[in-house]
Amino acid sequence: MKLYDCAVAPNPRRARMFIAEKGIEIPKVEVDILGGENLKPEYLAINPRGLLPLLELDDGTRFDEVMAICRYLEELYPSPCLLGRTPVERAQVESLQRKMEFDGMIAGSEVFRNQHPQFANRSIPGGGGVEIEAIPALVQRGTQTLSRFFDALEAYLENSEFIAGDAFTMVDITAVCAVDFVGWVKISIPEGNARTKAWYEAVSARPSAKA
Amino acid sequence: MKLYDCAVAPNPRRARMFIAEKGIEIPKVEVDILGGENLKPEYLAINPRGLLPLLELDDGTRFDEVMAICRYLEELYPSPCLLGRTPVERAQVESLQRKMEFDGMIAGSEVFRNQHPQFANRSIPGGGGVEIEAIPALVQRGTQTLSRFFDALEAYLENSEFIAGDAFTMVDITAVCAVDFVGWVKISIPEGNARTKAWYEAVSARPSAKA
Repeated sequence: MKLYDCAVAPNPRRARMFIAEKGIEIPKVEVDILGGENLKPEYLAINPRGLLPLLELDDGTRFDEVMAICRYLEELYPSPCLLGRTPVERAQVESLQRKMEFDGMIAGSEVFRNQHPQFANRSIPGGGGVEIEAIPALVQRGTQTLSRFFDALEAYLENSEFIAGDAFTMVDITAVCAVDFVGWVKISIPEGNARTKAWYEAVSARPSAKA
Repeated sequence: MKLYDCAVAPNPRRARMFIAEKGIEIPKVEVDILGGENLKPEYLAINPRGLLPLLELDDGTRFDEVMAICRYLEELYPSPCLLGRTPVERAQVESLQRKMEFDGMIAGSEVFRNQHPQFANRSIPGGGGVEIEAIPALVQRGTQTLSRFFDALEAYLENSEFIAGDAFTMVDITAVCAVDFVGWVKISIPEGNARTKAWYEAVSARPSAKA
């Protein structure tokens, strides 16, 4: 296996944290998104959408979505469990992971891409080089969504150490990656959200957070 | 179990088709999204995000994301298998399902919600009643994404009867629901896409398509 990766990008970081929590080693191939290397013919031949991360198996099979990669690795390396231990837990992790992804990562991406000059023609990821103009109004919409993301996070942490309960899961990985990502656009955990701040410190102190 | 449902809405339809393919019966509670019933206090008490569908278990546990619902039901009722038979297939289904969802369902939602007067202050789902203004530029961006969705669909069907291979899966369910949904905004399978048209006819003829 090898992981096509980008050290600075938030979605590849989700996969790297997952892999680090599993305690496995997968060789990495760095692709420079900021420099546009993911939209050059060499990488588009590997992933026509130009997205990272991408996991390539030894037989050439490729998975180009973080959750597809994580789901595959969870089956190969079930311990420690990161996607839920029972059918109910797995459904809860799926549901919460999506909320962290949509309201955190994707809202952050809308705010970032639609105001950053380097992404003026790359309003959404996955265009594979097709120009899609920035839409400035998405900066406000994304900011509104992020405000709900932070409210929800504080609420989820009311009765448990981690977002999905007493165990660290992929939900925490996506959420901490989202929190750090939105820091790029100067949005941070609201001052009064003490539970979120404590959770953020604890999760950021895990060795996997530096993967 | 019971399913909070909305007969006309495209995401509840994904869950209903999945349930019908499994051959199981789950009582339904109809919630009228077009009339705004999902944003009234009664339903917000059940799902603060105001989203449909939602599966409620007999012990009160609730899952409010289509894929969380489907993942749970796949574990309880493994046959017929709709989310992949092996770790590789399950990762492929996850990856393709997401493409159908992001490039089809969500792009369609951007086009629909940002031009329909009834959604003028509901630019994205999940706001739970918080007003989020429509952004007309998303109609064009969504239309561009849908064009890529249809190209990809035709390509996926090059070597197989169904999108993820030789078996009908959740990928086909999300894709057919997306195709019918974007019909609301007068976007349809491009004239020359013969494989997609044949697939669409075959999938639409399954009894589950009427669920």
